[in-house]
Amino acid sequence: MAKDWRDILTTVGRNNTALAKAAPDAMKAFAGLAGAATADGAIDKKTKELMAVAISICIRCDGCIAYHAHSAIRAGATREEMVETIALAVEMGGGPSTVYGADALQAYDQLSS
Amino acid sequence: MAKDWRDILTTVGRNNTALAKAAPDAMKAFAGLAGAATADGAIDKKTKELMAVAISICIRCDGCIAYHAHSAIRAGATREEMVETIALAVEMGGGPSTVYGADALQAYDQLSS
Amino acid sequence: MAKDWRDILTTVGRNNTALAKAAPDAMKAFAGLAGAATADGAIDKKTKELMAVAISICIRCDGCIAYHAHSAIRAGATREEMVETIALAVEMGGGPSTVYGADALQAYDQLSS
Amino acid sequence: MAKDWRDILTTVGRNNTALAKAAPDAMKAFAGLAGAATADGAIDKKTKELMAVAISICIRCDGCIAYHAHSAIRAGATREEMVETIALAVEMGGGPSTVYGADALQAYDQLSS
Amino acid sequence: MAKDWRDILTTVGRNNTALAKAAPDAMKAFAGLAGAATADGAIDKKTKELMAVAISICIRCDGCIAYHAHSAIRAGATREEMVETIALAVEMGGGPSTVYGADALQAYDQLSS
Amino acid sequence: MAKDWRDILTTVGRNNTALAKAAPDAMKAFAGLAGAATADGAIDKKTKELMAVAISICIRCDGCIAYHAHSAIRAGATREEMVETIALAVEMGGGPSTVYGADALQAYDQLSS
Repeated sequence: MAKDWRDILTTVGRNNTALAKAAPDAMKAFAGLAGAATADGAIDKKTKELMAVAISICIRCDGCIAYHAHSAIRAGATREEMVETIALAVEMGGGPSTVYGADALQAYDQLSS
Repeated sequence: MAKDWRDILTTVGRNNTALAKAAPDAMKAFAGLAGAATADGAIDKKTKELMAVAISICIRCDGCIAYHAHSAIRAGATREEMVETIALAVEMGGGPSTVYGADALQAYDQLSS
Repeated sequence: MAKDWRDILTTVGRNNTALAKAAPDAMKAFAGLAGAATADGAIDKKTKELMAVAISICIRCDGCIAYHAHSAIRAGATREEMVETIALAVEMGGGPSTVYGADALQAYDQLSS
Repeated sequence: MAKDWRDILTTVGRNNTALAKAAPDAMKAFAGLAGAATADGAIDKKTKELMAVAISICIRCDGCIAYHAHSAIRAGATREEMVETIALAVEMGGGPSTVYGADALQAYDQLSS
Repeated sequence: MAKDWRDILTTVGRNNTALAKAAPDAMKAFAGLAGAATADGAIDKKTKELMAVAISICIRCDGCIAYHAHSAIRAGATREEMVETIALAVEMGGGPSTVYGADALQAYDQLSS
Repeated sequence: MAKDWRDILTTVGRNNTALAKAAPDAMKAFAGLAGAATADGAIDKKTKELMAVAISICIRCDGCIAYHAHSAIRAGATREEMVETIALAVEMGGGPSTVYGADALQAYDQLSS
């Protein structure tokens, strides 16, 4: 049964909001870190979000894949760029990255349509 | 869709029973290790279970979060203690720990009610 | 609620096919690697697939457990061999491996019946 | 040959300074996160640093062990508390945590003397 | 004491040659995978090597950092691009990524000079 | 500079002894787990130690590689069996496993001579 990536994305967002309310200082600082780390710079935001997807695949985190695939799409990432990001993750993670990489492709297809 | 942490907890328990039956020597030794590692001592059991929750978040293991959040609650952990445990896990794990940390907070809220 | 390992296995297969279509060069090379790594040799294929199950447990990858437990079963792995593989994974992974190891035993039982 | 934990600690500090200079926005935000996550609260700073040690053992990070063992010592952690923290990490990480846990004990002994 | 990244890089290369000789089929297939995954395409080779550095930091692999930092440098990666790659890895990995990220910056500085 | 695996092995042993003295209950229980998990059974001890090597490569733990490569050698593992174990680890771990797998081959060669 295919995963519902829009549901995963929504759940991550809602849970994150609850955590931010419970731990405002830490989560505000983390938001600042995330903002600084993904801002356009020598590397553009789209590419940084694709990097985050590659890491998410290699560490096997569904919620992270949903969040960063969505951010990459919003920043303009094409399907071909997502596919090449996944291939890089397979080089760096072997078989498990084929499993989570295939998930990431499915996430891209669902979240970009 | 919110995860059902009581169901996850029940499933972990039932599966663990099946494994203990199949591999009695190894699992009896592991139970001894778990008992020794979480006994009250210089650090109390409650704090040790919170440590286990922090590790579970950082290594991204839902079943572990369910089990150790439940044990922490039974040992008297407050919501504030769980929240601070999660914040520590975010420092040590970054973005993925926000995802699994938010899950741990949800687990706390469901399993303590 | 018990996981449906046949469904997980089917999903991994279908997603993998989609990824292979999208990234044919990388995935063909990975298939070559997987073929070379699991071929009968000084160690037989059955044992290699059990090794892959042990790794899958230790790195906490459900889809990998489904795929390699299935391959081990097809190569003739007995339940006792699976149980001893899980025990080894518990030595190498502690508590989290009891969670994913119990999952692997369930996967064996469902996929071999 | 025993590791020189004071040297590891010094190196982590010096490298971190170089990184903070190169990436000031991200590293300032991370420092804010670390400060919020380890402040005295419902759980005291000493315990939080021991939690960070437990995580560092389970994820196998020498530099992290050096840094957080040192912080725990400065916050007043006793050797017995460190030992119990390591035992908890062994429950949660199995054999690899015995290797890195034994390292953490050595770090404690060197850095507290 | 600062790590000697040129020495680490040389060692990785020499060891890899020995492994390729011992396991020619698997390693030739892996080389094919690596080649396909890092080829210029929708994403250029330089960016792909930086992605590999980000992953290497998050999974805490010194040898991988040496190899991919060197490949990124050869593909034209600037220090600013390396710094932003490290910041992204800190977002995705927290404290441990500050340790290995600072290592990666040191690797860049040594290997590019 | 090649690693000195006999030194790594000796250090792991010595540190482990110190940890066992400090945390006797937990470490005695862990020893029982390790004994049960690696005993001859449906799978022989040699193969179980090779499984432990494969896991050690995939999780990137030098001390674990030293310990389990040594145990595998003592149980009669051939170089060809070690090489095939490494190839399996490369399938399951990608590039990082080529780094640690090449280390494991070096460990085998040093510790078996």
